[in-house]
Amino acid sequence: MILDKVNTPDDLKQLSSDELNTLADEMRDVIIKKVNTTGGHFGPNLGIIEATIAMHYVFNSPVDKIVFDVSHQCYPHKILTGRKEGFLNPEKYLTYTGYTAPEESPHDLFKVGHTSTSLSLACGVAKARDLRDEKYNVIALIGDGSLTGGEALEGLNNAAVLGSNLIIIVNDNNMSIAENQGGIYANLSLLRDTNGKAENNFFTTMGFEYHYINDGNNIEKVIETLEKVKDTDHPVVVHLRTVKGHGCAVAEANKEAFHWILPGTLDDKCNYSPANEIEDYNSITTKFILDKAAKDKNVIVINPATPGVHGFTPEFRAKLGKQYVDTGIAEEHAVAFSSALASQGAKPILAIMTSFVQRTYDQLSQDLALNNSPLTMLVYWGGLSGADATHLGSFDMSLISNIPNIVYLAPTNKEEYLAMLEWSLEQTEHPVAIRVPFGPLEVSGISDTTDYSNINKYKVLEKGEKVAILGLGNFAGKAKEVKEALKSRLGINATLINPVYISGIDKELLENLKTDHELVITLEDGILSGGFGEKVASFYGPSGIKVINFGGEKEFTDRVPLEVLYERYHLTTDLIVRDVETALQTSVK
Amino acid sequence: MILDKVNTPDDLKQLSSDELNTLADEMRDVIIKKVNTTGGHFGPNLGIIEATIAMHYVFNSPVDKIVFDVSHQCYPHKILTGRKEGFLNPEKYLTYTGYTAPEESPHDLFKVGHTSTSLSLACGVAKARDLRDEKYNVIALIGDGSLTGGEALEGLNNAAVLGSNLIIIVNDNNMSIAENQGGIYANLSLLRDTNGKAENNFFTTMGFEYHYINDGNNIEKVIETLEKVKDTDHPVVVHLRTVKGHGCAVAEANKEAFHWILPGTLDDKCNYSPANEIEDYNSITTKFILDKAAKDKNVIVINPATPGVHGFTPEFRAKLGKQYVDTGIAEEHAVAFSSALASQGAKPILAIMTSFVQRTYDQLSQDLALNNSPLTMLVYWGGLSGADATHLGSFDMSLISNIPNIVYLAPTNKEEYLAMLEWSLEQTEHPVAIRVPFGPLEVSGISDTTDYSNINKYKVLEKGEKVAILGLGNFAGKAKEVKEALKSRLGINATLINPVYISGIDKELLENLKTDHELVITLEDGILSGGFGEKVASFYGPSGIKVINFGGEKEFTDRVPLEVLYERYHLTTDLIVRDVETALQTSVK
Repeated sequence: MILDKVNTPDDLKQLSSDELNTLADEMRDVIIKKVNTTGGHFGPNLGIIEATIAMHYVFNSPVDKIVFDVSHQCYPHKILTGRKEGFLNPEKYLTYTGYTAPEESPHDLFKVGHTSTSLSLACGVAKARDLRDEKYNVIALIGDGSLTGGEALEGLNNAAVLGSNLIIIVNDNNMSIAENQGGIYANLSLLRDTNGKAENNFFTTMGFEYHYINDGNNIEKVIETLEKVKDTDHPVVVHLRTVKGHGCAVAEANKEAFHWILPGTLDDKCNYSPANEIEDYNSITTKFILDKAAKDKNVIVINPATPGVHGFTPEFRAKLGKQYVDTGIAEEHAVAFSSALASQGAKPILAIMTSFVQRTYDQLSQDLALNNSPLTMLVYWGGLSGADATHLGSFDMSLISNIPNIVYLAPTNKEEYLAMLEWSLEQTEHPVAIRVPFGPLEVSGISDTTDYSNINKYKVLEKGEKVAILGLGNFAGKAKEVKEALKSRLGINATLINPVYISGIDKELLENLKTDHELVITLEDGILSGGFGEKVASFYGPSGIKVINFGGEKEFTDRVPLEVLYERYHLTTDLIVRDVETALQTSVK
Repeated sequence: MILDKVNTPDDLKQLSSDELNTLADEMRDVIIKKVNTTGGHFGPNLGIIEATIAMHYVFNSPVDKIVFDVSHQCYPHKILTGRKEGFLNPEKYLTYTGYTAPEESPHDLFKVGHTSTSLSLACGVAKARDLRDEKYNVIALIGDGSLTGGEALEGLNNAAVLGSNLIIIVNDNNMSIAENQGGIYANLSLLRDTNGKAENNFFTTMGFEYHYINDGNNIEKVIETLEKVKDTDHPVVVHLRTVKGHGCAVAEANKEAFHWILPGTLDDKCNYSPANEIEDYNSITTKFILDKAAKDKNVIVINPATPGVHGFTPEFRAKLGKQYVDTGIAEEHAVAFSSALASQGAKPILAIMTSFVQRTYDQLSQDLALNNSPLTMLVYWGGLSGADATHLGSFDMSLISNIPNIVYLAPTNKEEYLAMLEWSLEQTEHPVAIRVPFGPLEVSGISDTTDYSNINKYKVLEKGEKVAILGLGNFAGKAKEVKEALKSRLGINATLINPVYISGIDKELLENLKTDHELVITLEDGILSGGFGEKVASFYGPSGIKVINFGGEKEFTDRVPLEVLYERYHLTTDLIVRDVETALQTSVK
């Protein structure tokens, strides 16, 4: 294999054109096999193999600095920069993260996993170079899908006036995760259709020198253009047309489904579209929405470019028609847009991932909460997890619940969730966020008739004494287990409470607990810092009631298994009971 | 006066062209007098008088919906929509807010004060209309300065594909608060120079129909174009060239200084540039920076378009030269850019207002904290205040201090602040944010030799017993007053502590306090929710130590005087002492 000879980017520079092409084929086989085994980003990596080879052939990394956007297209880069064993050796398949990671290699500049950051980061790298009068190339590689994020557009506007070397490679595969959205894509399309020759050019309007490569999967062509722009003394855009999933027919034909794949997807090619037979929180949500939308034309779903996460299949989107808006990667716009819809009497449902709701704090605060628009926001994948550091779902409660006016709800089962959805959509008083339960569907079998307009009214599930357990959202089941363990191990008949509201305190209930409880424990599936439990602790601060907050620490964990985190944070039933025992013993003293 | 006859936009439609022009002159006089009396946004309002008259002449507000960006240019609109007495009658000068406010009038759609939101909001208004198959015009008025914010660019990209009526008026006065920054402005400039005829057009690249009005301060010309685009069935951009400060020579000549003015500014025209003779936190910061930057070319200041807030005068900026970057209104870019600078060995100082740091949570989390770049971020104007609801400085602690890795410092005086600045700039381990004290300069006279790399190490200022007072940042003085009052009124010799670190708990110190204290109180200048004190309460939760957290409630207050807020939140020395007394009495029971 040619790949045997390639351990660093320098080794590439010794290869002939034929060898480079053979290398690309070898890398494609390696990536297909690896990703089909472990799961991971598929289409983006297959599309960028040739361009990555060309980049490393022309530039001199790590002296020249390559900044990846999202970095879900960095597998070829990792293979070429000393980490090929993570793709060749099945035993090492999990050695490297799926994103750029400076701790792995000096060829990786930043730890990234959110989109639209590369242009600003590359500007900073270039400016640091300029301050010291050093000379090297700074290259940003950004996909067309990432280009519509506000951070990318702010970066592009600033990059244009940097006044020194910066090479922005726009990897245009005419796809975001799903279809692209917005006016910029009309221009990218025009540029593709005119072989880059159209007079009206989004990039040149901003002042960039512009180059177009029609066959971005042709190594020679890419090298030819990159050689031209190398060592430029001003900002340049290289518009690279590539094919997402290049070289794998089924991925080329089904770009959305093959953006990210589960292990074994290729082994069962006919069945790649996610089977939606098992009822889960996604399926009950989409069913609810379709029913509602059919009856009420004011119902509208908004999603910033992550339909797959929510089970918003192409069929679902088609059924909703003009009652579905994909904003593209544009979370800020999505929130402000949805807030305005709500303010005008529409009934918007904004579906967004926890990790990406982080991109829109000020819009939640100013456009939404300050205007008190009755938006329904569904927050998906909230909770502690073994995810990459870039995609943790543990920060949303501290982010959302400290903004005034927003009612943030934590349902614990199907019936409660659907009742909250129904209530939220029909009320007009509050911006409402619902933390969609993360995990298998819990069915209580009892229809929920709670009036959720009694804001901050907690539910007492079982009245006991001495110890009260507040089990929030995903941790309702854990709370029940703890109650049972307290009974069996310590003989305590604890009170079990479902707090329902992440964003507020039921002062009356908490006050009443004082009469026959000495300890209140809170369980929340996220970081404690700024979250739910601390508010309960603060409430009881001046009193004699003790409080223990159980939840995650304020830290970025990186692919740490959940079991390990649960041990670390004392979130197993056993450790919780032990902490309760210790606190009660101290009380007696 | 013509203005006497105008109480609603309908009244305008009866006026002749001459009368409209006279009306503009009258409104200009009224606004100049009012703003020179109360202070407020000056240049933006003078520049938009004619266009506002034209908008209300052509469109039918509030059936047609006008969405203002930032809305610091809404004074003429307020005058024409039933609120002229707030500008004519000095006794009513403070009746209306300086921003659009739906509670004041149906002609105001949203409560806004942050930039770059109008396009997304207008898209939502238009889409709600389309869902119901209604017909009316939706107009967004956005300044060129606001156009570079990520939210605006996301909105523009989505607006282009709305597929129905939307009229975006770009008020191009060739100024942000200070100079404009970025590539988009090169195109706006080209369009102005070519009377809107240049082939290469930023707006048409995105698919917008485009109209140019060269004299945007000419009512007839603006009416002529708006009549053309009225009732359009697709998105349109009207590029309107206006003069900031139009009709007031000194404001036209000094656009930056006259963006917002203090009361009486016009009465002393020669002296409009802010005198910087008195030493304050701004002046010691700029002096520190100039000294540092002269010695070290890696030092660089980044600011997203608010130089005046920080005392970054044109002279200061000129002295720094390439060591100063104004990113324009682009807070997300500013954070990512600064983080990358820090990661590459530069020493960036990012200056930003509390209210606008809200625009960049995800960049603080992902681009900065996750990468642990040693940025120094100076956060200005943090604290409870009588400000407009849109410009509160009370949310930053809950926003910043719950993100892992960021060290958020709260200096209490000049010496401490400068020592923190020095430490932060020279260390390479942590992203550091410093909450620049808000208020008059406190000088201790004792040079600060603290090693701030002992993260979360609090300072015990005076050791006492029974009660410990943790007075954070701006509230250090208040903590001292409380200590004295506890002594004189209750005979308690309390321990006085400066926590220094907003973002963490000194567990060792707090543990030690248990031995001879029964109550710990925390004082913080911001909302309690998600803030500092709750973490202390959570720490002591399982113990017998009582805690009272003093700080603001989670709410948007709108021009509520600080004295009122202090009473409401029990933040006067008297109320604090009383709460302490109550808690101690309960202890005895």
